[in-house]
Amino acid sequence: MFVMNEEKLKNYAKLIVNSGGNVQKGQLVIVGCDVENARFGRMVAESAYDAGASEVVMEWGCEFSARSRYLRGADEIFDTFAKWRVDKFKDQNDRGAVYLHIISANPNLLAGVDPDRIRRFSIASRTALKDHMEIMMSNGLRWCGSAAPSPEWAKLVFPDLSEDEAMEKLWDYILKGARADGADPIADWKEHKAGFAGRLDYLNKKQFKSLRITTGIGTDLTVGLATNHVWVGGGGTAKDGLDFFPNMPTEEVFTMPDKHRANGRVVASMPLSYQGSLIEGIDITFKDGRAVEHSATKGAEALGNIMNMDEGAKRLGEVALVSSSSPIAKMKTLFYNTLFDENASSHLALGKAYPKNAKDTDKMSAEEKEKIGMNDSLIHVDFMFGTEDMTVTGISENGEEIVFFENGEFVY
Amino acid sequence: MFVMNEEKLKNYAKLIVNSGGNVQKGQLVIVGCDVENARFGRMVAESAYDAGASEVVMEWGCEFSARSRYLRGADEIFDTFAKWRVDKFKDQNDRGAVYLHIISANPNLLAGVDPDRIRRFSIASRTALKDHMEIMMSNGLRWCGSAAPSPEWAKLVFPDLSEDEAMEKLWDYILKGARADGADPIADWKEHKAGFAGRLDYLNKKQFKSLRITTGIGTDLTVGLATNHVWVGGGGTAKDGLDFFPNMPTEEVFTMPDKHRANGRVVASMPLSYQGSLIEGIDITFKDGRAVEHSATKGAEALGNIMNMDEGAKRLGEVALVSSSSPIAKMKTLFYNTLFDENASSHLALGKAYPKNAKDTDKMSAEEKEKIGMNDSLIHVDFMFGTEDMTVTGISENGEEIVFFENGEFVY
Repeated sequence: MFVMNEEKLKNYAKLIVNSGGNVQKGQLVIVGCDVENARFGRMVAESAYDAGASEVVMEWGCEFSARSRYLRGADEIFDTFAKWRVDKFKDQNDRGAVYLHIISANPNLLAGVDPDRIRRFSIASRTALKDHMEIMMSNGLRWCGSAAPSPEWAKLVFPDLSEDEAMEKLWDYILKGARADGADPIADWKEHKAGFAGRLDYLNKKQFKSLRITTGIGTDLTVGLATNHVWVGGGGTAKDGLDFFPNMPTEEVFTMPDKHRANGRVVASMPLSYQGSLIEGIDITFKDGRAVEHSATKGAEALGNIMNMDEGAKRLGEVALVSSSSPIAKMKTLFYNTLFDENASSHLALGKAYPKNAKDTDKMSAEEKEKIGMNDSLIHVDFMFGTEDMTVTGISENGEEIVFFENGEFVY
Repeated sequence: MFVMNEEKLKNYAKLIVNSGGNVQKGQLVIVGCDVENARFGRMVAESAYDAGASEVVMEWGCEFSARSRYLRGADEIFDTFAKWRVDKFKDQNDRGAVYLHIISANPNLLAGVDPDRIRRFSIASRTALKDHMEIMMSNGLRWCGSAAPSPEWAKLVFPDLSEDEAMEKLWDYILKGARADGADPIADWKEHKAGFAGRLDYLNKKQFKSLRITTGIGTDLTVGLATNHVWVGGGGTAKDGLDFFPNMPTEEVFTMPDKHRANGRVVASMPLSYQGSLIEGIDITFKDGRAVEHSATKGAEALGNIMNMDEGAKRLGEVALVSSSSPIAKMKTLFYNTLFDENASSHLALGKAYPKNAKDTDKMSAEEKEKIGMNDSLIHVDFMFGTEDMTVTGISENGEEIVFFENGEFVY
């Protein structure tokens, strides 16, 4: 059995605790971890005590058991979510908890499960945990999602390797991808954070009216940006004023496109893994914000299903830029995991836009949202188009054109 | 790494679910398991679904994390036990849960921990969980405690073996000890259960006034039995009328001695592991129920500490008989674990008696308890005296003597 190097893992655990969750002296820490990654979960707990945590509560999960419950449980259990489980989060949040989630998701975990059970339990749990989710989403507390490999996940990403080799390689990629493989990952993340600050500051001040994106594999798309759009990326600041990184890794800066203004063609640079299907060679042509033609060299039907979900599924909800020198981009690997794949390459999303990507959307009527170009849909599906030769030109309100991204890099 | 045979483990899991917890169709099952035994815990869960469980909730524990919390947590966390944790048990009990606990206790888990923290958290949790414990102890629901090895435990039992070899051997001993290594363990436990029924029926009808116990290594003790004493052993019957085995293994039948009537000498046949000390060669002489002389070839001071705890610590609270043909007895191994050690050999306990070992003790005043000979103490410490040449003679009210146990076996 492959056993990952102790020092490397300890550095990664320390990074998650200090740069990710920014654990403070006297704080309650909740560590969510699959039983298969118990060794690493315990290292994170020890790091949290090193940082002065008053108590570390291990929230052990087990993907195998979760799957088994969906497959073998009685039908009625999927409509309820016990009150004590809600009270648990309330108690922890009242105590000012920091949540550190170590994800080792097998992308095929729910294959073969009755989708109705998943839907019903998702409704039951989301309804019950509404207050908790609201606290999380509004940065009411700090949290950090990071990754550790499971054998199933590793074999999916590296199907040609033995399980041991695949585990070793996925650990290697995760640490590299999370910028956790250097001699001083905490210092590396300070620098990484400063990079985000510079990009966001530049883009938010410029308030480009549109972006023209071109790549050597055929993309030539002009995307309008929403009125008062906000570029977001990197870390967040919790209500207590302390910074944290909700995701490790994180490489993208992203904003809200104007759903009425996308013209031209976009060609995907990597496959899209969607609900068990792999869609390759995505090629979409937009006119006035709406996809008017689409094709794929593989999985064209699945692509059609996505785009026919609703009207919003044919329009854009996100445009994200990722430098091709980012560690994940350089791996040119499909991780089948959003935490990595959305940080691998510049991407667009079909469907729903994020409210935080434009000013004051929480106070807007549906008409006002429509006016600024904020898209709505039941779906939000990212697909990657970034290449090493990508160029992005910012077009200002007054027609001025500035190339701020060239050969896959920010060059402002 | 040693990996235990799949079929053997599945048979053991099935035994725990069906003979131990007696899981019924539509029932909620709680499986308590250390993350280090995740593989076996999942097998128990699958067996529970096979038996028709409506839902299996995994209650993952982690000894390492529990120790770390005691060593590194803030001092104030040991005085509280969150209300939602109490509500969790109430919710599960209201749903008619069966509890299956897989124990893999490292006997040295709490070595070096501040005893005051253990005491305070024990008070906080026991106080909060009083209702739950009451339900468990009064057979309000069914439960089963069983064992699976941890590397630390295995190395303590078999210090001369490599970790892999020790794990293999401890698994082997656990399965043998739990009568789970045969072709049909469930049938074996039916037979085992019938054996208990016969012994309890014989002993409870006889109502011996005293037992005279002799062994080849020096024991010659006459122990009076309490008025209206009850021999107990094997399984229990829950309030819903269904049988279960709270402990797997279980080999002993035991009753209440009269605290005023023990005369003679008892020589221990195995060491006693007590709070980290090993006490060997225990030799105690009783007069009118009270220990008047005691010595040990090793750990004599620890033995003295036990017996000087209070007045009750010098008197007997339990006499238990175990056939030396029982699988655990045959192993002649110190497990450092009560689940096994108390089923390895006939034993006496210094200290507190069990209320269930005499009739109507729940309605008795202190004076009445004193009158029947029921001992009380802060402690209850078992030590083993059974040998393969042990003889037990039952002495009736009218002075009749019947040898019902000879050469280590029941012979009635």
